[in-house]
Amino acid sequence: MKSAMNFTSDNCYGAAPQILAALAAANQGAVTSYGEDPVTARVAASLSRIFEREVAAFPVVTGTAANALALATLCPPHGAIFCHEKAHIAVDECGAAEFFSHGAKLVLLAGEHAKLTPQAIAAALPGFQGGVHSVKPSVISITQATELGTVYTPGEVRALGDFAHGHGMTLHMDGARFANAVAYLGCSAAELTWKAGIDAMSFGATKNGALGAEAVVFFDKSTAGDLEYRRKRGGHLLSKMRFISAQLDAYLTNGLWLANARASNALAQRLANGLAKIAGVELAHPVQANAVFAHLPDAMAARLRDAGAQFYDWSPPAGGRALARLVCSFATPQADVERFLEVAKG
Amino acid sequence: MKSAMNFTSDNCYGAAPQILAALAAANQGAVTSYGEDPVTARVAASLSRIFEREVAAFPVVTGTAANALALATLCPPHGAIFCHEKAHIAVDECGAAEFFSHGAKLVLLAGEHAKLTPQAIAAALPGFQGGVHSVKPSVISITQATELGTVYTPGEVRALGDFAHGHGMTLHMDGARFANAVAYLGCSAAELTWKAGIDAMSFGATKNGALGAEAVVFFDKSTAGDLEYRRKRGGHLLSKMRFISAQLDAYLTNGLWLANARASNALAQRLANGLAKIAGVELAHPVQANAVFAHLPDAMAARLRDAGAQFYDWSPPAGGRALARLVCSFATPQADVERFLEVAKG
Amino acid sequence: MKSAMNFTSDNCYGAAPQILAALAAANQGAVTSYGEDPVTARVAASLSRIFEREVAAFPVVTGTAANALALATLCPPHGAIFCHEKAHIAVDECGAAEFFSHGAKLVLLAGEHAKLTPQAIAAALPGFQGGVHSVKPSVISITQATELGTVYTPGEVRALGDFAHGHGMTLHMDGARFANAVAYLGCSAAELTWKAGIDAMSFGATKNGALGAEAVVFFDKSTAGDLEYRRKRGGHLLSKMRFISAQLDAYLTNGLWLANARASNALAQRLANGLAKIAGVELAHPVQANAVFAHLPDAMAARLRDAGAQFYDWSPPAGGRALARLVCSFATPQADVERFLEVAKG
Amino acid sequence: MKSAMNFTSDNCYGAAPQILAALAAANQGAVTSYGEDPVTARVAASLSRIFEREVAAFPVVTGTAANALALATLCPPHGAIFCHEKAHIAVDECGAAEFFSHGAKLVLLAGEHAKLTPQAIAAALPGFQGGVHSVKPSVISITQATELGTVYTPGEVRALGDFAHGHGMTLHMDGARFANAVAYLGCSAAELTWKAGIDAMSFGATKNGALGAEAVVFFDKSTAGDLEYRRKRGGHLLSKMRFISAQLDAYLTNGLWLANARASNALAQRLANGLAKIAGVELAHPVQANAVFAHLPDAMAARLRDAGAQFYDWSPPAGGRALARLVCSFATPQADVERFLEVAKG
Repeated sequence: MKSAMNFTSDNCYGAAPQILAALAAANQGAVTSYGEDPVTARVAASLSRIFEREVAAFPVVTGTAANALALATLCPPHGAIFCHEKAHIAVDECGAAEFFSHGAKLVLLAGEHAKLTPQAIAAALPGFQGGVHSVKPSVISITQATELGTVYTPGEVRALGDFAHGHGMTLHMDGARFANAVAYLGCSAAELTWKAGIDAMSFGATKNGALGAEAVVFFDKSTAGDLEYRRKRGGHLLSKMRFISAQLDAYLTNGLWLANARASNALAQRLANGLAKIAGVELAHPVQANAVFAHLPDAMAARLRDAGAQFYDWSPPAGGRALARLVCSFATPQADVERFLEVAKG
Repeated sequence: MKSAMNFTSDNCYGAAPQILAALAAANQGAVTSYGEDPVTARVAASLSRIFEREVAAFPVVTGTAANALALATLCPPHGAIFCHEKAHIAVDECGAAEFFSHGAKLVLLAGEHAKLTPQAIAAALPGFQGGVHSVKPSVISITQATELGTVYTPGEVRALGDFAHGHGMTLHMDGARFANAVAYLGCSAAELTWKAGIDAMSFGATKNGALGAEAVVFFDKSTAGDLEYRRKRGGHLLSKMRFISAQLDAYLTNGLWLANARASNALAQRLANGLAKIAGVELAHPVQANAVFAHLPDAMAARLRDAGAQFYDWSPPAGGRALARLVCSFATPQADVERFLEVAKG
Repeated sequence: MKSAMNFTSDNCYGAAPQILAALAAANQGAVTSYGEDPVTARVAASLSRIFEREVAAFPVVTGTAANALALATLCPPHGAIFCHEKAHIAVDECGAAEFFSHGAKLVLLAGEHAKLTPQAIAAALPGFQGGVHSVKPSVISITQATELGTVYTPGEVRALGDFAHGHGMTLHMDGARFANAVAYLGCSAAELTWKAGIDAMSFGATKNGALGAEAVVFFDKSTAGDLEYRRKRGGHLLSKMRFISAQLDAYLTNGLWLANARASNALAQRLANGLAKIAGVELAHPVQANAVFAHLPDAMAARLRDAGAQFYDWSPPAGGRALARLVCSFATPQADVERFLEVAKG
Repeated sequence: MKSAMNFTSDNCYGAAPQILAALAAANQGAVTSYGEDPVTARVAASLSRIFEREVAAFPVVTGTAANALALATLCPPHGAIFCHEKAHIAVDECGAAEFFSHGAKLVLLAGEHAKLTPQAIAAALPGFQGGVHSVKPSVISITQATELGTVYTPGEVRALGDFAHGHGMTLHMDGARFANAVAYLGCSAAELTWKAGIDAMSFGATKNGALGAEAVVFFDKSTAGDLEYRRKRGGHLLSKMRFISAQLDAYLTNGLWLANARASNALAQRLANGLAKIAGVELAHPVQANAVFAHLPDAMAARLRDAGAQFYDWSPPAGGRALARLVCSFATPQADVERFLEVAKG
């Protein structure tokens, strides 16, 4: 199969070899099922170590499940969740948050480079303060790194955390690409999460090297409520849980999570730098993680696709160019990036 | 780790080597995500071949998800699902069927050896025929093999299928151990399902050698409705779907599914035959799949546990004995069975 | 219209004249809508007076809504509600409790004369104590007076309250015919509710003289949670709330609620006493409220229906007789009772 | 109580005398409960007559319930409902549509004078056509008359109906003030509904003279599905249904519904015309129903409130003036309107 120049998504690539190997290693003998096994215990400990705090961690197989379970725990059925209008939970998860929360309402807000601000939420809040006639403001949810490849700084997260808590709400982070954000910022995982006011997050591994493994993390264990019931009820408690935990275990071992993120971030930087020098190309957003959003002239886009490149038009072509989304994976060949740039130059 | 004599559940054992190998094989290059990959297509074809009919197949990671998605498709929120009072959907899935169906009601019925009969349902039906005051009879759900290790014959399934369709209902099968039932009966998969009136089923692989892989199967593709939306919304559409499909693909290749089931069935038969000859032991149910239910004298049970054996008391000890559930996996060592019998003999 | 001898249900009769008059009285000028009116405030005060404690009260139009709102507040979506197998919430409300609670499970238990006992619940509990695999025991719900016309004593309620609280559960009362129970027992409303461990109840008025008015009552105001959001979201917050509150206000004024209940109770007693003296008739349950359950010979039942009597067969005829349910309303003419007895005698 | 100049909402006023009288008239003898009574049958016939077509009609007590039941019937849990960002279902019903539909998503669109256009929906649709990743476009919902006191013409409705059906969707109308729209347009009820493509509507009476009575109407009876189960399950099937139906019956008799609507429309016209002549006042929207939206100088607003006038600021004061919402009821005294204008003039 010729898969060269596939920039459609980081989830088009497979698993890191260390993670595959961990599955084989975990396949020994009989262990207690449903998460009462030693590997799962180790994952909880590793996450607590990385976050410098004892956390409640719940492995699941998809980011959609992780987000929805966290949000359902934080938000009552009659609550409002404020998020960016491009948020994955809003536009890519087929209403999973609504399903798991039993009908909470997502309030979609605008914000530059897919980032939410306290100002935007403050402007929307009055519409939800008329008592029982509207749903109840309950959660703010942000994506880190964002859907447009940008990254919130710890300060930006803290501003949202302060706003949330000051208004009786909690702050959730969709961390499907959390590793990319940490790798970009060079800060600690703690600084970017609970120290900045995050109450619960989805800690992603799938896009960054796992087969299918994420963890819902609650930083104050007492607030996780009945999440484990919700997980079981949602069909997300695997009987052979060791095989999900083994993925996370390998991911958290020897810094694999950051190494992989640095690799994909670097590829995106290389791609962005290269594109920025080509006439007619315009970068649409700062490149801070593993995705590049670039306006490409229609002729250039056609030439690239003729050469085998795959990528999404983020918005339909208009005015002779389209906005291309180019995502790099930890496993994307460096050569693919170089060839893409070659073909783009024409 | 000393895992000898673990008979607590078939899901305590790991994955078949062929299935682990398939994961590595699937880990090549970039493919389209979310199930638009060649391996997933192959699984659908294999299931259609095995069932001798073009089916709609939806891979997921747990039997709970498979059951709940099928039931939510077949049953409206205001519907009733008739099932055995010991059914996994009723007592072991934390209300997943209620969650995915948005509140359907499970009507629990008695029946010898965990098997449902048209007579039992007929006796309950009048309570649900008073119009809108009660929920609407919608689905009959059976487990094959049952929670007590017994198996419905094709004729028994057909009787339920005829009853269901004759009363405007559909027939669902929880096939978490479907392979064990087919292996026991020696019939075709088709005879035991759609030819006998099954409308939809959960086709299990996890307990029989996969890491975590099941398929929801609808035999009339036009009746699957929006199941794929429900799966996505439930967080059960994996981005790297190839890794779930690869498990099912290997499971369906070269008859692995039946070979594994025959192995665990044979171990259970050996265990049952051995136990039946021991004074004080009484088998509680016919042994037709991979589980043995045996009344063990308290002293014998204590002796076994002292020797390291693990198993569940299915009902609390009473009258000097308890009802032990002993489940064999495809990977249970034959030696464990023999040693268990040795120790039981005292 | 000839409505003589209608014993099908107490809700076949209309409204008490005092309550109709209250609607006209409430129809004066403009008031703030959605319950911010003086009549609604008066109802809350009256209920607090009657219950000798400041309660949280939420008027709604049906008992089904009242029950479901209370239960949804007390029980999480993944919770279990223990109730009698004949409970109105289980068999007559089309799954409303499941709908409002987002899928909680009703666990149906047997019990003489439709009464639940701690013993019956204790026997069922072990099936729900295996962690996340089963739903979580959360609420016990009883009906007072019961669906079979019997009444729990304060002591019986207290035993259930102690059991519930001792096992981390709450106790709910469906009081659709609460007035009949209080009238029968001659105790105070407080003794029969919070003093005996009831956490929340549906305080019924519809069957006893209102057009459509009930109140959800929480005895500890801090436990009512977001019930008012759930009520609004369920479409049960009336804009012209004064017209529901006016019904309750009249109902609670000058003891109308007890006077009406005494009237219907007395009619049922007269009916029961009369029937008990007729050869071939057998009372099935103690007559403690406004309903009589009597086995009537088929010929007698036919004769009564020929004469115009209306009533339900509670169970289908068998062995030459059927179990008739005969319900008296506050407005049932005494003459209808006498005539019924005359015809029954033959 | 001095309620003069209450323009906060039409639901602050009480019931029309004809409707109160109908309650008394309906309070005769015993009838079959739960809607199997002659008055309820008459309502269905009257609605079929008014709509010139046999319709399925379901009386309920609130507009919120009517909207939510209709939308839940038309939209799957994983569906999208397109509506105006000011729609009552979006901002005033606490997520009732999400609750009854089990989590459908409301897509909020802008549009002049609170009116939705096919163009606005067409622009949003591409975001919902990427398969299972987004919810499924299912329903368009409009409000007639709108939340800003404007009215869709039959042609505007038809354009939306054609668009909906052309895209596999249905068209719902929130007709809480439907009478006001018909009264304004002078067309037939049929022309403004099913002849223009409306599939289902909420036919409102509460704001226009009932105590609490609306009807869900489906124009093709075969599409109403299990609405009656949903109504029961939602606690909205009243046992003494005759008292809701009696309200609708009186409302539909002798043209009361249109007479009341003409009265309130005329008051709003008088108010608008008077205000338009006052310096500093600016009408914000065409006045086509019973509500006036006017920018009032802050000093004028203060003077009015000092004189006892009650009304909402639709948007917070800014630039020396606020946008006042002034709603007239069928029962608003003409003298209140005149006095309001007097005080406004200063």
